[in-house]
Amino acid sequence: MRILLTNDDGINAQGLAALAAEMAKHGEIIVYAPASEMSAVGHAITLSDPLRFSECRKNGEFFGIAVRGTPADCVKVAIWDLGRQDRLPDIVLSGINQGSNTGINTIYSGTVSAATEGAISGIPAVAISLASYTSGDFSGAAAFAPIIARQLLAHPLPPGVFLNVNVPAKPLEQIRGVRITRQGMTNYREEYEIRKDPHSRNYYWLTGDKMEVEPDDEIDDRAIIDDEISVTPVHCDMTYYPGLDMLRKWQISL
Amino acid sequence: MRILLTNDDGINAQGLAALAAEMAKHGEIIVYAPASEMSAVGHAITLSDPLRFSECRKNGEFFGIAVRGTPADCVKVAIWDLGRQDRLPDIVLSGINQGSNTGINTIYSGTVSAATEGAISGIPAVAISLASYTSGDFSGAAAFAPIIARQLLAHPLPPGVFLNVNVPAKPLEQIRGVRITRQGMTNYREEYEIRKDPHSRNYYWLTGDKMEVEPDDEIDDRAIIDDEISVTPVHCDMTYYPGLDMLRKWQISL
Repeated sequence: MRILLTNDDGINAQGLAALAAEMAKHGEIIVYAPASEMSAVGHAITLSDPLRFSECRKNGEFFGIAVRGTPADCVKVAIWDLGRQDRLPDIVLSGINQGSNTGINTIYSGTVSAATEGAISGIPAVAISLASYTSGDFSGAAAFAPIIARQLLAHPLPPGVFLNVNVPAKPLEQIRGVRITRQGMTNYREEYEIRKDPHSRNYYWLTGDKMEVEPDDEIDDRAIIDDEISVTPVHCDMTYYPGLDMLRKWQISL
Repeated sequence: MRILLTNDDGINAQGLAALAAEMAKHGEIIVYAPASEMSAVGHAITLSDPLRFSECRKNGEFFGIAVRGTPADCVKVAIWDLGRQDRLPDIVLSGINQGSNTGINTIYSGTVSAATEGAISGIPAVAISLASYTSGDFSGAAAFAPIIARQLLAHPLPPGVFLNVNVPAKPLEQIRGVRITRQGMTNYREEYEIRKDPHSRNYYWLTGDKMEVEPDDEIDDRAIIDDEISVTPVHCDMTYYPGLDMLRKWQISL
């Protein structure tokens, strides 16, 4: 299989290196990743400015293309660039992100947006995140990547649907299983810290603690708490379907 | 009512001015908007850098707070700032965006992400866009804003659900009605244009034409084609629910 890899922590991130090393055993890997760290960029795409590429080498060998843009830009430009060479990927893998992309975080995630971009283009796609902001143990997540990639290629999903995977920061042997989950609504209790710059002007910095996870075993964060891998089927249709009937009853007139 | 206004075209945009002028007739308006244009930023939030505010005056009068950040940042920081003053808004209105936010565009939209942020915080929210990139006729969209705001306040939606409104670029009298719609999947046929900078290095610029809209009257873009206002109930749960059963049948094992 031909595998397009990207991420939002940047082309030099440890999680991408772990994913690339594992997936190279299973197919041809092609890397287009942001030149610098791009966390919490949501589904940003670069329209007002041009994109630039450069080659990224590791240990003297070509590793991939560094894109001065967002994760969604990377996948968009990679699919365009590979398409004109008749080398479209069979699958897009985005990650391994340092930190979980569960609950409300899912919608802020550059990692998830890169997978979204793959799915929009009709290519099977998976976002993979490590459920820790500090652990360097990507081994379980890396080992799970080819398992989920093969499953997805064997079981095509409807157009626009892709997978959001979160993995406990442990070796695969210590992970207790795989749980199919839905996105939780767990959010952060947020504050802005007020600071003064050297010129006595205020600036504001976002901080926050994660709220308690909903007590429902089907929630993404619950799987992680139970040392299981969370696999959530996601799509890019934001419609709240039960709302269609609700709103029709409003009888809005001009 | 106390109305928080924001947008993604920036605090000096014509669409925000039109919305502010109209809504000032119906309540207290409070503006927190990006200092500069922020289109297609998706649901980006600023984590790595601090935010800064400045006062924006128009015709010698205080108009609002210009935030050096994204639309989602504006709403997040406004809710924090107003909350600590005991002045939380009753509703968040984001717009009037220059250009429709329908189909796949919905997920790239800063205008929509600002409304999402309101909804996440439990405040009724509406994203309003003008279905034209060129027309300066915001009159129909501005006139519809208080109508939909009152409807939403009279009929609370479930937590996390908000409205994505797209309005034809016409006076209200020439608009044929209001249609409750779902988000279409209409996308752009995209290309990158390759150019050379003065130093003979390539750069790449995204271009594209909108694809044909699905032939289904319930689609957001179809309402616009028929000169109607499109009102789509949206939420920030990306789960593809039919996928839960599909994936359980895969029986993924480690």
